[in-house]
Amino acid sequence: MSFPEFPGPLFTDLYELTMAAGYFDRQLDDTATFSLFVRSHPKRGYYVAAGLQEVVDALTRFHFSDEEIDWLQQTGRFNRDFLAHLSTLRFTGDVIAMAEGEIFFSDEPVLEVSAPLIQAQIVETYLINTVGVSSLLATKAARCVHAAAGRPVVDFSLRRTQGSHAGMTVARSAYIAGFSATSNVLAGKIWGIPISGTMAHSFVTAFESETEAFEAYANLFPDSAVLLIDTYDTLQGARNAAIVGNSMKKKGKALLGVRLDSGDMVTLSRQVRRILDDAGLSDVKIFASSGFDEYALERLIAGGARIDAFGVGTRMGVSADAPYLDMIYKMVRVGKRDVRKVSEGKITLAGEKQVFRQHADDGGFLGDTIGMRGESLNGTTPLLRPVMEKGRPMGPMPTLEEIRSRFARNFERLDNCHKRLSNPEPYPVRVSDRLAALQERV
Amino acid sequence: MSFPEFPGPLFTDLYELTMAAGYFDRQLDDTATFSLFVRSHPKRGYYVAAGLQEVVDALTRFHFSDEEIDWLQQTGRFNRDFLAHLSTLRFTGDVIAMAEGEIFFSDEPVLEVSAPLIQAQIVETYLINTVGVSSLLATKAARCVHAAAGRPVVDFSLRRTQGSHAGMTVARSAYIAGFSATSNVLAGKIWGIPISGTMAHSFVTAFESETEAFEAYANLFPDSAVLLIDTYDTLQGARNAAIVGNSMKKKGKALLGVRLDSGDMVTLSRQVRRILDDAGLSDVKIFASSGFDEYALERLIAGGARIDAFGVGTRMGVSADAPYLDMIYKMVRVGKRDVRKVSEGKITLAGEKQVFRQHADDGGFLGDTIGMRGESLNGTTPLLRPVMEKGRPMGPMPTLEEIRSRFARNFERLDNCHKRLSNPEPYPVRVSDRLAALQERV
Repeated sequence: MSFPEFPGPLFTDLYELTMAAGYFDRQLDDTATFSLFVRSHPKRGYYVAAGLQEVVDALTRFHFSDEEIDWLQQTGRFNRDFLAHLSTLRFTGDVIAMAEGEIFFSDEPVLEVSAPLIQAQIVETYLINTVGVSSLLATKAARCVHAAAGRPVVDFSLRRTQGSHAGMTVARSAYIAGFSATSNVLAGKIWGIPISGTMAHSFVTAFESETEAFEAYANLFPDSAVLLIDTYDTLQGARNAAIVGNSMKKKGKALLGVRLDSGDMVTLSRQVRRILDDAGLSDVKIFASSGFDEYALERLIAGGARIDAFGVGTRMGVSADAPYLDMIYKMVRVGKRDVRKVSEGKITLAGEKQVFRQHADDGGFLGDTIGMRGESLNGTTPLLRPVMEKGRPMGPMPTLEEIRSRFARNFERLDNCHKRLSNPEPYPVRVSDRLAALQERV
Repeated sequence: MSFPEFPGPLFTDLYELTMAAGYFDRQLDDTATFSLFVRSHPKRGYYVAAGLQEVVDALTRFHFSDEEIDWLQQTGRFNRDFLAHLSTLRFTGDVIAMAEGEIFFSDEPVLEVSAPLIQAQIVETYLINTVGVSSLLATKAARCVHAAAGRPVVDFSLRRTQGSHAGMTVARSAYIAGFSATSNVLAGKIWGIPISGTMAHSFVTAFESETEAFEAYANLFPDSAVLLIDTYDTLQGARNAAIVGNSMKKKGKALLGVRLDSGDMVTLSRQVRRILDDAGLSDVKIFASSGFDEYALERLIAGGARIDAFGVGTRMGVSADAPYLDMIYKMVRVGKRDVRKVSEGKITLAGEKQVFRQHADDGGFLGDTIGMRGESLNGTTPLLRPVMEKGRPMGPMPTLEEIRSRFARNFERLDNCHKRLSNPEPYPVRVSDRLAALQERV
């Protein structure tokens, strides 16, 4: 299991380093706690935590190479003592975090770092970026899984993700959120995610005729052939696929499916279903892909489309309706002082925190309380668990399958009213009395 | 100069490999030409070409490692002969492309690959992804530069880009498009892009008082200090900054600027300007950053904000109003046969192409013609130039500074009516008579 390589400690905003130099100069290197959380998002009723494994890997490996220090020195911005300090820096802090696959809500910390101030500051950019994009995409994918209402959903987004790292992240995040497979071969190799794929229009056009292309493909992949039928004319394509399907039958094989990739999916899927059924091929599945997102899936299913599985691409892969989370990382305590930023209506909760979840007897989520780290609230489950201590991971991280199962369990327990694609009912999140009192004091 | 490492040939959709297996099985490996272009986008009047350097690097290094071949074999999907073929595969094709920094329009090929069909097919996913995200972000950045109307713009997006690759790409693409600097330290190291950054709210809150934080920072960075003044109260922050600015003056130094990061920017910037001017600090610049994009910059300037330079972050870094381009890669010729896909209103132009641009006497862009590769159209400049021949780069690629200059020259020549942020006037793009005639024949 490995991610695209950690780009190293220079993958950071310059101000993290200039601030660190400022702290170093004033010998301000007390332990500080920073809280990572999402402010509200108008289009999201919940978020899916992801990215923790990658963060723990990176923090474990965190150090400046000699070459990096030399380059920083050449910028002329930093003095020798500070650079000497950086050259020996390792991450020695503690991290508590929600496990990947947990569901969280606005203002709830998903992760808190407690480390010497300089370390905790320098990792800011990387933490926001990594947990941010992983959770963004897991959340978007969960919405698609919900909208598909039990039908399999496959990640087809690789070609249009925002770069290669996002392309890997979306495959992993979508799998966590319940996607059945990905088209991304490298994600199959690295993480064992099932891979899926058939043919593009170019394959069909590379042959003299559509039927010839179908036959060539079916002969080569007799157990997994899905034929793309919309290159020329979708209904004729369905008839050609039916001919190939029936000739496979005679050889004791079965055509797995056909794929629609354009046009009016409700009408076409029903017409294609009839063509296949009339040809005695009612086991042949209809796959569809065509710029789908969760809203399209919901509409298609409501409209009576006869689609057995969905390929979901670009709009999911970039979370097109909400392409970023307002994820922030704020200092909440330094030394023995709880701190907060209060300006222009953006309020941050001071102090080291815990998120407590209350469950119904059947496991359903009733509501959360953001409390102080040391509090214990009867009948609730704390969601932030220690994952690193003094810079070391605390035991093995869960496997991807475990994370996926955790999410599936959680998602069942979240009431559907919070999962509505538009105007979801707000999930109840309150602040504990003790944490509220602390805010008054700060 | 190096990009985040090429993730290798398994960074591809599975169907590229299953199609390749199909071609191999039928010995279909004639030279094929694929065309990379963007279908129309309702929110974009032009696109900025970027990503070519990265593509050429990757194609040059393209090969399957033994480990990758072993893994593909273990999937049980591919036969021995095909895998043996893959194991010796290198990219041996030709590439013609627009240089990075060219401006292009919907339907115009930005790149065409001519290579044995299997190679040309397998690289599809990578090409779309890489040229797609680089051009997407360069285009978004160009819009911000245009909206800033001559004021410097700095890339602050790193923390919220969709992953690390996008974080690197946005710094490079934005620099091409005319940004003056980036907060991304690694981009400074890899590409020599000027880096910029000051302090976050956490720096201010780490000190007992705002003034103490300002003094500490100004002492350490006497030549480049920009003080963040909105942690507690922006106007009081401006007064505190003025005190620090005047004490720097006495030491023969000068405060570079203050930064606003929240609130009503028009009102605040004017109030802060007055406080600084009244304190005799009219040389101190006002920087502002606060969830800006090109629309916000245009509004602020029109509203009379007294802002000298902008930090532009998240919305630019994910191209929030248009988070993907509908970039596609279509086979247009295979062997001696020109081909096209025609289905459901999506039409592709068959044949190997060239884009011809007509210039006015003063250099201004008058209009483009998409023609056949071999055509010559009087008084026009062909934009697609050979960059790889038989798998080898043809000479050195331009430097980043050259690319940036090329874009600046081009952008001046594009009429402002096409640069409007909303409802830009369509730029004239026609199809040549010969190319149109070819479509009739196909």
